[in-house]
Amino acid sequence: MALIHGGDIYTAKEVLGKLGNPPQILDFSANINPLGLPEGVKRAIAESVDTFDIYPDPLCRSLISALSAHEEVPGDWLLCGNGAADLIFRTAYAVRPKKAMVLAPTFAEYEEALLAAGCQVEHFGLSESDGFQTGEGLLDALDEGLSMLFLCNPNNPTGQLMSREFLHRVLQRCNSLGILLFLDECFNDFLEDPEQFSIKDYLKEFENLIILKAFTKIYAMAGIRLGYCMTANAGLLRDIRSAGQPWSVSAPAQLAGISALAEKDYLEATKALLREEREYLISGLSETGIDVISSNANYIFIRDANGGGKPLHEALFEKGILIRNCDNYHGLGPGYYRICIRKHEDNIKLIEALAERKDTLWQKQS
Amino acid sequence: MALIHGGDIYTAKEVLGKLGNPPQILDFSANINPLGLPEGVKRAIAESVDTFDIYPDPLCRSLISALSAHEEVPGDWLLCGNGAADLIFRTAYAVRPKKAMVLAPTFAEYEEALLAAGCQVEHFGLSESDGFQTGEGLLDALDEGLSMLFLCNPNNPTGQLMSREFLHRVLQRCNSLGILLFLDECFNDFLEDPEQFSIKDYLKEFENLIILKAFTKIYAMAGIRLGYCMTANAGLLRDIRSAGQPWSVSAPAQLAGISALAEKDYLEATKALLREEREYLISGLSETGIDVISSNANYIFIRDANGGGKPLHEALFEKGILIRNCDNYHGLGPGYYRICIRKHEDNIKLIEALAERKDTLWQKQS
Repeated sequence: MALIHGGDIYTAKEVLGKLGNPPQILDFSANINPLGLPEGVKRAIAESVDTFDIYPDPLCRSLISALSAHEEVPGDWLLCGNGAADLIFRTAYAVRPKKAMVLAPTFAEYEEALLAAGCQVEHFGLSESDGFQTGEGLLDALDEGLSMLFLCNPNNPTGQLMSREFLHRVLQRCNSLGILLFLDECFNDFLEDPEQFSIKDYLKEFENLIILKAFTKIYAMAGIRLGYCMTANAGLLRDIRSAGQPWSVSAPAQLAGISALAEKDYLEATKALLREEREYLISGLSETGIDVISSNANYIFIRDANGGGKPLHEALFEKGILIRNCDNYHGLGPGYYRICIRKHEDNIKLIEALAERKDTLWQKQS
Repeated sequence: MALIHGGDIYTAKEVLGKLGNPPQILDFSANINPLGLPEGVKRAIAESVDTFDIYPDPLCRSLISALSAHEEVPGDWLLCGNGAADLIFRTAYAVRPKKAMVLAPTFAEYEEALLAAGCQVEHFGLSESDGFQTGEGLLDALDEGLSMLFLCNPNNPTGQLMSREFLHRVLQRCNSLGILLFLDECFNDFLEDPEQFSIKDYLKEFENLIILKAFTKIYAMAGIRLGYCMTANAGLLRDIRSAGQPWSVSAPAQLAGISALAEKDYLEATKALLREEREYLISGLSETGIDVISSNANYIFIRDANGGGKPLHEALFEKGILIRNCDNYHGLGPGYYRICIRKHEDNIKLIEALAERKDTLWQKQS
């Protein structure tokens, strides 16, 4: 099986191990909060292992109650899953759209899930000349032949944001055409001002809207797996629930979610770190000759012209540094990469490695 | 959402709480190993919480390697899932059978998954007059219109066993008719002599066989979620993998699985406890006027004639004791129950509660 995603330190360790390099990996390829798991979450899991022999609550009642208060939406609009990816597949199976549209590039799992559900997938191409922005053309591209539209805000891997006003117009057009809008806001909480971009206040008015969120990235719970979706469409939510097993959310995940929502300072500390480190990385990347295309949330989308040496990801891989090579995204080719913002000591190592490479390339060329 | 399974202590606590009873629940309704999570598993999880921020290995490489040694099958015949139920749904979506057959009664998730995948479901009825045995009639009931057959050995909730010889004949007939046999052996490891009933040695010869197993029950990991399936059919395994997200098995689950397989005395201790407690419970149940229909693995299938009082599960529920009311199984009606074998101190409480009830019923009748 080919692994197409970031965060695959396991293959990296195997390969580096075979090369005789010590398998110490610095992973900039997965978009995880650099602060790591909140301490309260770690404590809650460690203290509760005795209880993990019993089945988890299929209805996630305590977690849904905490989430409902946190998101300020009714509990019966919420459904939790085994990570956001679980809910992407369940939704595809529940809706079984004949034809759906996804951006290109965007997160690959929308298309994987749609194909698994037997759906025809159309791509709406974003181009570098437009700065990978989703413009008016998207509104024109929608028609009655589509059953679903998948959007991601900010988009992954480009980081580009769509405004609330634009999304409102997309939502209205989808509504008039009978299209379900599946909006992934998994990276919304990394933004300086999440409310400025979320459209969850439109859920009540638009039953053709479903919003996806995750604990995976913002609370660094990638190993634990916890995502959720929100919609006022009760029939849709019931179908998504029926499209998979009752116990998809593990007991550690439910507990971790509840504990994470109680961590009041964690989100502010995350934003403060991202403010500083985004600036540091963008400046460092630019100095080493790399084009920074855009950055929001906790990652930076770049292009590297290379200059005759090894591809950037290969050069860094040999130093034990992983970045996300984006050449397998629909709509992107070689030279595009996504870099997650990490803690300062790690970011220094990345910039140092890039500076060394620049010197080597410069020597080769001269 | 109606909860149809055992182990729902969450609803029980809500209801008992409203009745003013202290929500202390003794749960005989979920078939979990009474020894609880092995100590090594608890330790492994508690000591590794720092690492749960990174994505789990989608290929479960370390776990598959340990499982391959444990089950003595090649690693590329194995696929892990988020509990056995995850793999039931993934298989249904991967195969998309037009028509499939399930036993009645049997574990409800086969049918739930088949219906979610748009499949027509036929029931092969087991009757009390035959002791709920799956006899020759099953061979006659198979025809070319079926794409899949789901069997469970020992069957849940009846506990009845099918012999290897019988299963071999079913497998041959399925093979000649182009039917995929999905065999659930999740309770096999609770048997005194598991090898006498497992047919995993037929995997190599029969590519129309897939066997399901789980850590959930035998290692008391219901909250953690970990199941796996085995088949020599590489195409089928690839399709099942593609039918869901890449990260379905969490990092705690992979770690727990590896640690559980290293617990060498746990399985023997489990069997020793079951030997003693099965005898104690069967004798106690019989003395309180309850018909014991059958018992293998870690549960006992019973029928209660009632005698004019409240249904057995309601009478016990008021004392904070849950048993599995089986009246919502296809092929069963009121009066059938499944009781999980627990530790001695718990089993005493169950028998005491039943003895009290017998006295009350007797007083009413006299």
